[in-house]
Amino acid sequence: MPKTTNHLLGSMSKSESQIDFRTTPSRYRHWRLNVEPPLAVLSMDVDEQGGLMPGYELKLNSYDLGVDIELNDAVQRLRFEYPNVGAVIVTSQKDRIFCAGANIGMLSTADHFAKVNFCKFSNETRCAIEQASSESGQRYLAVVNGPASGGGYELALACDHIMLVDDGASAVSLPEIPLLGVLPGTGGLTRLIDKRRVRRDRADLLCTTTEGIRGQRALEWALVDELIPASQLYEKSRERAIAISQNSINTLPEGGICWSDLERELSQSVIEYPSLTVGLDGTTSTASFTLYGPDQSCPGNVVDAQNLGIGFWPLELARALDDAILHLRTNRPDINNWIFRVYGDGSLIREYDKFLVRHSDSWFLREIRLYWTRILKRLDVTSRSLIALVEGGDGFSGTLFEVALACDRIYMLDDNKRSAISLTGMNFGRLLMANGLSRLETRFLNDKSMMEKLHAVSGKILETKLADQLGLTTVTPDEIDWDEEIRLVLEERTSFSGDALTGMEANLRFGGPETLETKIFGRLSAWQNWIFQRPNAVGPDGALRTYGTGRLPRFDKTRV
Amino acid sequence: MPKTTNHLLGSMSKSESQIDFRTTPSRYRHWRLNVEPPLAVLSMDVDEQGGLMPGYELKLNSYDLGVDIELNDAVQRLRFEYPNVGAVIVTSQKDRIFCAGANIGMLSTADHFAKVNFCKFSNETRCAIEQASSESGQRYLAVVNGPASGGGYELALACDHIMLVDDGASAVSLPEIPLLGVLPGTGGLTRLIDKRRVRRDRADLLCTTTEGIRGQRALEWALVDELIPASQLYEKSRERAIAISQNSINTLPEGGICWSDLERELSQSVIEYPSLTVGLDGTTSTASFTLYGPDQSCPGNVVDAQNLGIGFWPLELARALDDAILHLRTNRPDINNWIFRVYGDGSLIREYDKFLVRHSDSWFLREIRLYWTRILKRLDVTSRSLIALVEGGDGFSGTLFEVALACDRIYMLDDNKRSAISLTGMNFGRLLMANGLSRLETRFLNDKSMMEKLHAVSGKILETKLADQLGLTTVTPDEIDWDEEIRLVLEERTSFSGDALTGMEANLRFGGPETLETKIFGRLSAWQNWIFQRPNAVGPDGALRTYGTGRLPRFDKTRV
Repeated sequence: MPKTTNHLLGSMSKSESQIDFRTTPSRYRHWRLNVEPPLAVLSMDVDEQGGLMPGYELKLNSYDLGVDIELNDAVQRLRFEYPNVGAVIVTSQKDRIFCAGANIGMLSTADHFAKVNFCKFSNETRCAIEQASSESGQRYLAVVNGPASGGGYELALACDHIMLVDDGASAVSLPEIPLLGVLPGTGGLTRLIDKRRVRRDRADLLCTTTEGIRGQRALEWALVDELIPASQLYEKSRERAIAISQNSINTLPEGGICWSDLERELSQSVIEYPSLTVGLDGTTSTASFTLYGPDQSCPGNVVDAQNLGIGFWPLELARALDDAILHLRTNRPDINNWIFRVYGDGSLIREYDKFLVRHSDSWFLREIRLYWTRILKRLDVTSRSLIALVEGGDGFSGTLFEVALACDRIYMLDDNKRSAISLTGMNFGRLLMANGLSRLETRFLNDKSMMEKLHAVSGKILETKLADQLGLTTVTPDEIDWDEEIRLVLEERTSFSGDALTGMEANLRFGGPETLETKIFGRLSAWQNWIFQRPNAVGPDGALRTYGTGRLPRFDKTRV
Repeated sequence: MPKTTNHLLGSMSKSESQIDFRTTPSRYRHWRLNVEPPLAVLSMDVDEQGGLMPGYELKLNSYDLGVDIELNDAVQRLRFEYPNVGAVIVTSQKDRIFCAGANIGMLSTADHFAKVNFCKFSNETRCAIEQASSESGQRYLAVVNGPASGGGYELALACDHIMLVDDGASAVSLPEIPLLGVLPGTGGLTRLIDKRRVRRDRADLLCTTTEGIRGQRALEWALVDELIPASQLYEKSRERAIAISQNSINTLPEGGICWSDLERELSQSVIEYPSLTVGLDGTTSTASFTLYGPDQSCPGNVVDAQNLGIGFWPLELARALDDAILHLRTNRPDINNWIFRVYGDGSLIREYDKFLVRHSDSWFLREIRLYWTRILKRLDVTSRSLIALVEGGDGFSGTLFEVALACDRIYMLDDNKRSAISLTGMNFGRLLMANGLSRLETRFLNDKSMMEKLHAVSGKILETKLADQLGLTTVTPDEIDWDEEIRLVLEERTSFSGDALTGMEANLRFGGPETLETKIFGRLSAWQNWIFQRPNAVGPDGALRTYGTGRLPRFDKTRV
């Protein structure tokens, strides 16, 4: 697939290899995960020669997508394999550096697509860290045992508590603006202001001071939560982690499930997973997802479900869907339209949903719900046209109908009541979007009477006419028009400027309130993407290109 | 100033002229303003040959910055000259077209700076229309008497009520994405979703359907509020306007003040207004604003104040500041740093503030407060480094300290209590930012104890040490360091990439909640600016370049 590999991370690679998001601690090159419940320590020790692409060295714990893929795996794995961990220490295994942020060599050679995709995934992982802290009682502490600059400090900002070594040298810094002409775009600006409530003029000073801020002043400005003398680093950080984990410790379960490798078969035209098949058609630029419902009844109790582990249907499908999204976003920029179908027995799917709702106090089922929450949020920020096709059967029920609600349009076949959808408790406040609302609440913004109507039909089979009256579909062609209608919409989407569609999606998909998270993906990422296009950053004399060469960047000083 | 004129509206003009934001109805070329209290009719009748720059014709009521300058004047003037108007009808004087939106010829020749600046100003004017509807009881009705496309429909969306002629032909449309490869960026996407609560999939259909939507379907989808038969257009729209104006009619005052031309003297190095001088220094890329306090006591009552009209000090200064901001933003992109000083007697300034607070039920004083609100919001979205210099005296009091709070940094001279600032009632909830909070609330996000402390010192003289303890300053150099410190910060700002600073400001200045308005300037504008850089829109084969040439655009289909 030489046509697309130059998008992966810069255009220097002629490799046919695709980026794989599946990994496991025994294969980590950049992180060490040590688990001693109730604590876990996630230590960064980036292999300088371990870059995902050739052409740059990952010095000073700087990172590229490969490093972040391992972080994502660790954060994810901790939720399912180690629910008995109440606090996770994020620190550096290297001397005198915590993390130098995203690798500049990588950023300067990566093309626009690669930069934007890399930032999106990094942001998702950091939001997942915050979700673990807030929803799973698995709280993250950054133990900043050396300088943390740029993305390094941004990683700390995603943690619940930041401890900084008070050694007279270690500073937190965001030198992107003075050194690189870009933003601290992995949530840095937003988390300073909206999460840590750092005063805006102090944030301005921090972001324009290359050397950063250390010690007492960092504490006073709320850039960190605590200073630790270098000599007491180990003890004090463990003490604090234990103290923080006390909040969850009484409710921690014994142990988790085995998070073994996800099976998949990949070819140019199809990806096969358990419970999910994705057909790929370059001609129409379309990926056709078919989500399969369960082939057996839901277990009768939580222990039986947990014993199924990754084979428990909602988790099996979640893992497949998550991987497919990441794979296609990164490796197949040539595929613009993602269409979703469900094949399965709606009554079984609703049974699983009921089980998830009924046993919401089980850590295992809670984690599955939170995982689906994260996956659906990935869809919300995926810059592809997302279209649900409801044709035959009632598979689009509950959690699976939530996939349709994440789509830009829902086409539903008007076929004499053979096609149906159904709502369950999962559609009402259990799979929240980044804006803090359910997808139904976002769809019918502030329309309480509509929400009451929908509550009233929860659990019922809604055939096409009724679903349409309830505002749950977009277009409802009959059998004569269906094929032509779908062909036309795919052709139409493919004819548009992808950039305009990306901008449209970023605005239409996020009605209602904005939160820290929507601000990161909306406001902050949009400005960063703009800057990633500007000659001051990426031109021949731009700061990303000249950094480290000894040449000074040349800026067009015009303020736009 | 040939160096900058190519930024104004495309690079085709060699003219030395600068864009003037001052106008008056007798000089309008594109709008007719007819006032018959309690109604006013603002009719668009764009002069095809009246473009601000050569090279394009303003056909079909399409607009450029010149057309919008007149609209801004009318909206502004209606507030002060015609407070006895309770409803404003916005309509077209041309047959068979309401408004075709921003002129494509202008957009295709304008450079990036010009496009971004044009959109910002247009957005501000549309937000001013909404402020008039919501805060002044001057409600806007769009009477869409022909097709309204793109920016034409977006203008209607800024109105309180949209009436569409039901003639079987007139549609509302947002064809930017299919035709031009850009967004409906003047608030369109945001107002569809967050103001009118149009379902996101319907918004998607509308935005991808070139011909738009008309009649019953437009009504059903909430794209418009009312349909009117063509034969009853005149009567029905007047009836509705009268009905809407009834809400305010009992409280409408007799008449307004005379909104005569603003005096100013302009040279390359200085702009002089009553109450404001702006020195311009190209070497340091700095505009030095000196705001002058009143030279006499505040009038004893509202009638006397109103009799002073535009000579009433808070209004006189407001008009000057507003014009200076617009002039510099548009005509002087070479000036990157704006520094603000106040020269005046703080006790007099506080007296005026008290007067404004005490007589908040006076239409005249309310309009002055709302005008300051709009001007300060302009500063918030101005992409320049804004720095307040508090050096000597206590002129930075109340409303004028709000200017400092809008700045990125506040430098305050530590000079043995000769420099001081002071808070008044105007700093507490009367000059709200676009996020719905006061600037103090935004500065100390959710810190209630800090807000209580500040309330407690309202009206007091706060010398440097105290102001600093209260978090109201950024840096407080003494007299020995002052000059050097200011020189350094200006040099530093000038050395950075302007793009990175713009992105930083857009994120650091807007803590806390997001609203319709912040979404327009943050999320929507940022994505539009990104698209305005992309070859799919502005490259040689981009849609903005090929539109109307008979050539088809060529898109890179990669989704980023």
